[in-house]
Amino acid sequence: MDLELVTIGTELLLGHTIDTNAAYLANALAAVGAHVVRKTSVPDTPATIRDVIADGLARSGFVVTTGGLGPTRDDVTKHAVAALFGRPLITDETYLASLEARWERLGRGGPMPEANRTQAQRPEGAVVLPNPRGTAPGLWVEGAAGIVVLLPGVPHEMRALTDRELVPRLVARTGGTRVTRSRVLRTTGVPESRLADRVGPMEAQLTPVTVAYLPSFDGVDLRLTAWDVPATDADAALDRGAVALQDLLGSSVYGEGETDLAAVVLDLARAAGVRIAVAESCTGGLVAGRLTAVPGASDVFAGGVIAYDNAVKTRDLGVAASILATVGAVSEETVRAMVAGVRARFGVETAVAVSGVAGPDGGTADKPVGTVWLCAACGERVLAVQLGLPGDRNEIRTRAAQAALDLVRRVLRGPEGVG
Amino acid sequence: MDLELVTIGTELLLGHTIDTNAAYLANALAAVGAHVVRKTSVPDTPATIRDVIADGLARSGFVVTTGGLGPTRDDVTKHAVAALFGRPLITDETYLASLEARWERLGRGGPMPEANRTQAQRPEGAVVLPNPRGTAPGLWVEGAAGIVVLLPGVPHEMRALTDRELVPRLVARTGGTRVTRSRVLRTTGVPESRLADRVGPMEAQLTPVTVAYLPSFDGVDLRLTAWDVPATDADAALDRGAVALQDLLGSSVYGEGETDLAAVVLDLARAAGVRIAVAESCTGGLVAGRLTAVPGASDVFAGGVIAYDNAVKTRDLGVAASILATVGAVSEETVRAMVAGVRARFGVETAVAVSGVAGPDGGTADKPVGTVWLCAACGERVLAVQLGLPGDRNEIRTRAAQAALDLVRRVLRGPEGVG
Repeated sequence: MDLELVTIGTELLLGHTIDTNAAYLANALAAVGAHVVRKTSVPDTPATIRDVIADGLARSGFVVTTGGLGPTRDDVTKHAVAALFGRPLITDETYLASLEARWERLGRGGPMPEANRTQAQRPEGAVVLPNPRGTAPGLWVEGAAGIVVLLPGVPHEMRALTDRELVPRLVARTGGTRVTRSRVLRTTGVPESRLADRVGPMEAQLTPVTVAYLPSFDGVDLRLTAWDVPATDADAALDRGAVALQDLLGSSVYGEGETDLAAVVLDLARAAGVRIAVAESCTGGLVAGRLTAVPGASDVFAGGVIAYDNAVKTRDLGVAASILATVGAVSEETVRAMVAGVRARFGVETAVAVSGVAGPDGGTADKPVGTVWLCAACGERVLAVQLGLPGDRNEIRTRAAQAALDLVRRVLRGPEGVG
Repeated sequence: MDLELVTIGTELLLGHTIDTNAAYLANALAAVGAHVVRKTSVPDTPATIRDVIADGLARSGFVVTTGGLGPTRDDVTKHAVAALFGRPLITDETYLASLEARWERLGRGGPMPEANRTQAQRPEGAVVLPNPRGTAPGLWVEGAAGIVVLLPGVPHEMRALTDRELVPRLVARTGGTRVTRSRVLRTTGVPESRLADRVGPMEAQLTPVTVAYLPSFDGVDLRLTAWDVPATDADAALDRGAVALQDLLGSSVYGEGETDLAAVVLDLARAAGVRIAVAESCTGGLVAGRLTAVPGASDVFAGGVIAYDNAVKTRDLGVAASILATVGAVSEETVRAMVAGVRARFGVETAVAVSGVAGPDGGTADKPVGTVWLCAACGERVLAVQLGLPGDRNEIRTRAAQAALDLVRRVLRGPEGVG
């Protein structure tokens, strides 16, 4: 079942309000097999509202709107829809009575304002969907042209009506037999174009599952989506897809869904019975910040040194002044010494060190902005890598922190974590 | 000037991604007098993309799209637009050369993948808008049917192209005679309801400027907006509003626009000729991370100790074991000792310490989750405060880091920074 979403409100077009309703609705509807195929935001202008709903009905026969149902004068959706279906607006006496009872119950005093009374109006033949969180009801309007469902724009009211009224009515209609469901594999350390070169050739075999690439500074998420499949097949199809990609990409995949790489690192350390410390220069606390963001980090994470100044590297981490003077702070020797120093100082088995040129200044021909050295160690295993990271200061630091966590993950995984 | 926005990406219709690009664009365009009158999100389907752009051109003659320009095979916008304007796709040799140079510079090895090469394609006659943050350029396509501007979907790339390419081209065209323009004052440490109580009574005097309250974990931004005014009047009206609010709110305002509190702190320290170190427990690196995010932090920021484990507080910061044993790590005595310890260790005049209960575990009746002690010192001035912060672990940590920076700001400002 395909449908179009229309979100109504001048504020949505000014850029001051981010339209979170649309995402909620799309998710809730897809889970019961109703697919949003287009989403349009329009201002509170009667002619525009009528046009966009009419166009949506012509294309898909099913339109869901949010907004334009409140008690203020710019709320015009009901009038537009009534005109479109060629029906008069009438007062729903049952709903009016419930509004009046509510007014009484809230003890607001005096008669209910006219603005509230208009909320009991509906196009003739429309079904009122009671609003458990507010005064503007939803409406289900159905005719030869198709179905239009009107929901209020206030997010918690819209969500309540979606869950209690819209979704059950859709399930009753479709039987909820066909669904669209997704799953995400998280990768880091491999550029999107290289992932696409590797995954591309096998995509056809994954049908009806497709793969979308979602790049961020933290890596590339691969979202597998099983489109419009029988509800009973969706999870198996996604499982097959996930296993195939996992086999192909190996240790580049660090988790699923919302998994945080820092949590993976802490879990691995916990399982290995080791504690972690950090020594950070250019990331200046970001690696520690990521680790301590995870609830319960304190049983594995000891602490760290932010060795921003070279004097700190020498005094607190024992990096020889001769190393800093000859090969410099951004070097393999320095990060190896930082790791050794912080392990000794904190008495921990596992540590990671970061030193790099985050920019915008400080780059040289030899070590341009984006040059970052990392070293991670666990027991006898020590890995050091040099990266050339793109982007501005924030991007370089964010990417460096993620790469540092990934290097700890690899050193904790042992031999199979490498490569 | 009216225009329509088309955001392209199947993910926008699945409810997995909230469309923040649209809000950014609408804001940036309104500031130069270009008004978004409709916004449509469509999947990566060539026919749909072509239809929605064609409809938008028919209505308003001007369409801006985001998304559909990445290196993966579901990126089809360029093809759709080329077909719509009846022009072939050709390779832009200049842009191809710049992509190849970039590939070489990043030292990724091997030839540039085919997926990257297609990013240099453009409809014949289209102008390439270079992308300073990624490989997918924007395009300006103009013909008898009107104007279509294609921007990439990755938010920071879209924003860079909007600011550097799209906005200047629009200003050149319209001269920007009537505009809607905004200005933001940033406050921290005062709840939204208290700000509203103070600002509310004077709002009417600010006409045609309105005030919006934008709360976040970092404080409350006050957005002043001058609506649809002559371009020549906008800045003066905003100036009057900003001065009035600044007078009313005093030191609670720490800056304007995108000003980062960490940058304010570093500037104050630089002006005072002092250096800063940090000692963090529950924020675990966030304060240092905020400071080192600012370019040029290294001339003022020395470094810090992440004293997550109590043993670190004693060993590296000299917090007496008796303090930890009696009043505990989350106490005024501990943060005062942490500040003294880190100042001595790093040999700096200015320091800040944070110790608190970020949760979800670790709260007691006496010190519930959200209890945070802060201490900041500069020379003889020492300020210590206890906060009761709302929210989950992330919110508490984020708020605590912001409050710590604000305490450093106040201690650096001297007597007039307090209260």
